[in-house]
Amino acid sequence: MSETTHTAATAAGDSTAGPAPIAMIGLGRMGGNMARRLARAGIAVEGFDPQAASRDALAGEPSLRLHGSLADAVAALPAPRAIWLMLPAGEITETALAELRGLLSAGDLVVDGGNANYLDSQRRAADMAAAGIAFADCGVSGGVWGLENGYCLMFGADDARVAERVAGYARALAPAPDRGWLHCGPAGAGHFTKMIHNGIEYGMMQAIAEGFALLEGRADMKLDLGAIAELWRHGSVVRSWLLDLTADALREPGAIGSVAPLVPDSGEGRWTVDEAVRQGTPAPVIAMALMSRFDSQGRADTGNRLLALMRKGFGGHAVTAASATKAQP
Amino acid sequence: MSETTHTAATAAGDSTAGPAPIAMIGLGRMGGNMARRLARAGIAVEGFDPQAASRDALAGEPSLRLHGSLADAVAALPAPRAIWLMLPAGEITETALAELRGLLSAGDLVVDGGNANYLDSQRRAADMAAAGIAFADCGVSGGVWGLENGYCLMFGADDARVAERVAGYARALAPAPDRGWLHCGPAGAGHFTKMIHNGIEYGMMQAIAEGFALLEGRADMKLDLGAIAELWRHGSVVRSWLLDLTADALREPGAIGSVAPLVPDSGEGRWTVDEAVRQGTPAPVIAMALMSRFDSQGRADTGNRLLALMRKGFGGHAVTAASATKAQP
Repeated sequence: MSETTHTAATAAGDSTAGPAPIAMIGLGRMGGNMARRLARAGIAVEGFDPQAASRDALAGEPSLRLHGSLADAVAALPAPRAIWLMLPAGEITETALAELRGLLSAGDLVVDGGNANYLDSQRRAADMAAAGIAFADCGVSGGVWGLENGYCLMFGADDARVAERVAGYARALAPAPDRGWLHCGPAGAGHFTKMIHNGIEYGMMQAIAEGFALLEGRADMKLDLGAIAELWRHGSVVRSWLLDLTADALREPGAIGSVAPLVPDSGEGRWTVDEAVRQGTPAPVIAMALMSRFDSQGRADTGNRLLALMRKGFGGHAVTAASATKAQP
Repeated sequence: MSETTHTAATAAGDSTAGPAPIAMIGLGRMGGNMARRLARAGIAVEGFDPQAASRDALAGEPSLRLHGSLADAVAALPAPRAIWLMLPAGEITETALAELRGLLSAGDLVVDGGNANYLDSQRRAADMAAAGIAFADCGVSGGVWGLENGYCLMFGADDARVAERVAGYARALAPAPDRGWLHCGPAGAGHFTKMIHNGIEYGMMQAIAEGFALLEGRADMKLDLGAIAELWRHGSVVRSWLLDLTADALREPGAIGSVAPLVPDSGEGRWTVDEAVRQGTPAPVIAMALMSRFDSQGRADTGNRLLALMRKGFGGHAVTAASATKAQP
């Protein structure tokens, strides 16, 4: 942790210079690797995370300095300042933005790279604009592989000059300077595009999972699911990065049996279905993929208990006692 | 067209020699290019298609001879014979197999590379086995790009020696000799695996289509669907060959508006859902993707008319006359 500030070699916005120093707030799984990738591209990064362990993990990275508070990280930046948030969506992001409102001045830039709801991002952009602070919302895809392969970045910003400031960082974070990033549209458009991306991901994942379950279900054929996943990676119509991950997972013997059949959902799937309802645009497969996750979480149990009771009621069909193990009827 | 036969350099089954000559029956979009790919790998191909235009398209291809009848193509082969069918599933394949039953002898091999229902393939393998004729069912993926990139091949065969004969051709058809083909299991397992592959394809396609519809539905953001498809190809979680095709399609301005919103279905989706029902394995997303195609074919119209009448009945809600253009309520 250092209290001194970087000296910007040239004024920010000078297109002949590299991007201005930036504060990365949130150094977890995503933010930590993004800070590394920016720093390795020669961009000065002022990092902050409330968790000491997250800060310590980045110690010794050149061009990356670590701070014990959000205020310290911001204070280390030259004006106009640039701050990139990689925090959990919701209350934590909201609190950090409120603190930043008090620390920043007109001309500064905040990029929210978390998975915020785009409606929140539209509101926040308007809030910041009232204080002359630029706001961009950036969806980031690529997961833990992003440090090595680069991230896919989609951002929204109302102003072309703001978009160009964000692009300076995006060129270093993306797989290559000329691809894998896009200024999608006005404020909110970045998180909107990322939300739809994740909705598609829900549907694709579910389709793959259902197909492999059907392969497994034909037990008499003794199909080798791992070999089939690997096969389909070469020349088939379903080849995809999600299939690559499936093939990787299935390479481990007993992989499927080793995990509980419980699939969490983290918000973006729900928001995509909310959006389908808001628009009145049918998205039955994405909605069904989300409902299947809810089902996996045990949330169909009440309905299923009622169905069993109804079958007993009208047809005298046997029910399984709640105390017994869940059984096939 | 030639009436002379190839002379097999060595007996079929000699693993030091290349694969024996093969008859390719059905030289359409798939079979024609597969015949080319086999011939270009130095395998002698005896081709037949009832359509003269399909035969003419292959004239001049080295190692590929064209015949005017199935019987002529078979007669041009050395024993033990190998025949590969690339015909439409159903009646046409059934008729060709019946004719082959009369032409072939014990030790000959028939590979059905069409999209047959695996239950038919299991029955046909048993029928052929009764006459000592080997039968393999091979699912082929790769579409019109297969000639250049190679095909993804998944086949079923009861016997390891039969599988090795099929593998000789598969090595030439696949993207590389050591990948992109698999002996999945017993007879039927090839078409079963291909059926599930296509079921997954239905779900993945539908998820992508729904996502882009939601992007388009947010008209105020003026999102560039083609740019977003291209963006997602680089580093995103949804990158896939189907997304590559989507990006290609969207590169054409006005592409979406140029086609009617009607999606045919060709059998494999229905069979996958039949299989889910047979197994009692849930496949809600694949089933929903299939139902969405039926909907696009106008098959939801009767139900929707009834729903409009019910709403009128209990709530006095207005209905749109059948003579009027289909309108949003």
